[in-house]
Amino acid sequence: MPFAAAEYRERLAKTKRRMREEGLDALFVTDPANMNYLSGYDGWSFYVHQGLVVTLDHDQPVWIGREMDANGAKATVWLDHENIRHYTDEYVHSPVGKHPMDVVATLVEELGFDDRTIGLEMDAYYFTAKSYQRLQQNLPEAEFDDATLLVGETRLVKTDRELELIQQAARISEAAMQAGIDTIDEGVMESTAAAEIYHTLISGTEEFGGDYPSIVPLMPSGEHTGTPHLTWSDAKFEQGDPVIIELAGCRHRYHSPMARTVSVGEPPKAMRETAEVVVEGLNATLDFVRPGVTAEEVERVWREFIAKHGLEKESRIGYSMGLGYPPDWGEHTASLRPGDQTVLEPNMTFHMIPGIWNDDFGVEISETFVVTKDGAEAFADFPRELFVK
Amino acid sequence: MPFAAAEYRERLAKTKRRMREEGLDALFVTDPANMNYLSGYDGWSFYVHQGLVVTLDHDQPVWIGREMDANGAKATVWLDHENIRHYTDEYVHSPVGKHPMDVVATLVEELGFDDRTIGLEMDAYYFTAKSYQRLQQNLPEAEFDDATLLVGETRLVKTDRELELIQQAARISEAAMQAGIDTIDEGVMESTAAAEIYHTLISGTEEFGGDYPSIVPLMPSGEHTGTPHLTWSDAKFEQGDPVIIELAGCRHRYHSPMARTVSVGEPPKAMRETAEVVVEGLNATLDFVRPGVTAEEVERVWREFIAKHGLEKESRIGYSMGLGYPPDWGEHTASLRPGDQTVLEPNMTFHMIPGIWNDDFGVEISETFVVTKDGAEAFADFPRELFVK
Repeated sequence: MPFAAAEYRERLAKTKRRMREEGLDALFVTDPANMNYLSGYDGWSFYVHQGLVVTLDHDQPVWIGREMDANGAKATVWLDHENIRHYTDEYVHSPVGKHPMDVVATLVEELGFDDRTIGLEMDAYYFTAKSYQRLQQNLPEAEFDDATLLVGETRLVKTDRELELIQQAARISEAAMQAGIDTIDEGVMESTAAAEIYHTLISGTEEFGGDYPSIVPLMPSGEHTGTPHLTWSDAKFEQGDPVIIELAGCRHRYHSPMARTVSVGEPPKAMRETAEVVVEGLNATLDFVRPGVTAEEVERVWREFIAKHGLEKESRIGYSMGLGYPPDWGEHTASLRPGDQTVLEPNMTFHMIPGIWNDDFGVEISETFVVTKDGAEAFADFPRELFVK
Repeated sequence: MPFAAAEYRERLAKTKRRMREEGLDALFVTDPANMNYLSGYDGWSFYVHQGLVVTLDHDQPVWIGREMDANGAKATVWLDHENIRHYTDEYVHSPVGKHPMDVVATLVEELGFDDRTIGLEMDAYYFTAKSYQRLQQNLPEAEFDDATLLVGETRLVKTDRELELIQQAARISEAAMQAGIDTIDEGVMESTAAAEIYHTLISGTEEFGGDYPSIVPLMPSGEHTGTPHLTWSDAKFEQGDPVIIELAGCRHRYHSPMARTVSVGEPPKAMRETAEVVVEGLNATLDFVRPGVTAEEVERVWREFIAKHGLEKESRIGYSMGLGYPPDWGEHTASLRPGDQTVLEPNMTFHMIPGIWNDDFGVEISETFVVTKDGAEAFADFPRELFVK
């Protein structure tokens, strides 16, 4: 396991403190990142229903999932095996209306929490509307509260071991970014560049291999730099194309995302100038980061910096991140944007991804950083500049 | 776009026929595969809320998603741009309680369907409990019905163009499986083998590159062959390890999954014998497939075959598949298992993945096949045997 059992127990204790503050007797954890955080569970099984039942009265959470994945749980969690339960395959995409939440409800009853207040991750990816409906039907005496971000908020401040894994992920990010920059060139297919990046993300460094990232490498090019979430195709890079590469190395599910911009061939003067503004703005904004400032104050530094250049950007410029599963490595708690009054503390980790777009091209240059005791430190060591191929 | 607009219109017409049969006036489609099927939309944006609103009165569905992804929609869908709507970034992980479904509800009102019967994909991955709750609150006059599988059922029978894409995906699967078998050996790290497989999945063949598969390559080895959904680590393959490789090439989001089993070093006699049983059983079961038989009859052939060898397998041995996004390439409709009375028709496509496990090892050998007019045809052309390294 990537962490000592004591670290998982400390996480559980923090979670229980938050549950008490929120008046929750139990919590049903379905976000795979939260499941991993509390139990260590790591498997590609989130395509079927699964979760952890945490109660204030039980020392350990109970893992519940599909029968064939209970073995995977035994291999990856710190919990006693009596706290690993399963439902049989007849509950998987059942043609006769059976649902895994029927079995979860039975477990909640067995634990004696069917008439108590239960937190649910109402807006987590894999907790469906149907799951909620079934729990309501099966547990009519329970009171349900929204606890979507409860565990996520306990994840904001990282331990030294977590930072070490993000540091390792950053080594992989650097190597993968270099592979992408080395491969991209006029006439090269986008899929070829994606293949080289992927190869490096998984083979990793001399010392360790990489895990699959929660988001595939994105590399919008040409006019598509304004469509950041389209994935690669067999189109070939052309002379004059701007290409934005966004990727993340991953180590034991901890990420260190990074974005850089490449110009295929000599860029127009305006692009060089824009890149300089992005780099200077990123540097100035990172320089401002320290414990005690708020997330929105950090964003304001960027916004005021680019305003001096007559520019505006609407969306947030960063978010808290770390442990994650597809489809996202973000934690969905703090964001660097107006209105977010999260006070930064040492060992919080963010991906700051500012960018500027105009009609012809976009430039993004990003860093993942940790808040230190008196500033911020980027995990990756990779030139902050526009790359020209 | 991978399909002509006429094909998307035909899909929409089929969907509307099913909506009429189910008494639905409108349908909110959130499963990314269903969104792609009806609109062509393809982007890694399912980590934020998005969907298509289909109504019986409107010629085209309306795409709705995050502002920065609306450009991606314009680049990938066949719809008129007036049918591409967005919500702003303040609705993304809002710290003040704004939710994208508030904007979806406003759209439904604008379309005049706020007091009608609306189908929802209640058990689809990215339709959260919170989304459902918000739609209920915002549309108090609407009646909501569960339509989780409505679009999926229209996807069961493939067109020739869809089969062509699965065929291309199978070419990639063959190459990637060969890369995995070539790489796996005593002392090689699992992550190294995963990297080679990934490289081939994305670089594809001489003629075309590959898309990202909806599930990462899985390669449980040794005692982990009983934990099918654990992903790779830096552990090294050891002499005597059985390794099950399950992967899928992907082309324009269409998959052709395949599993093979490798023995690192000379396998024990029992493993060779088990592999022979799996291959013979797979062949016999595939031979039985033809239009008119039911999904459960297909499974029965396998079950009766292995019963002759004194063996039992509890879970289903296959499922309908094709177009997909993470976390799954399965369609969640028909399964090859007891109780599933789906009648097989020409151009349905399934992944048949039978396996036998004992205490020391497991053997899985699978094929993705299409039901033809008088039988079944596997997409991949790859030896059905136990590979020895």
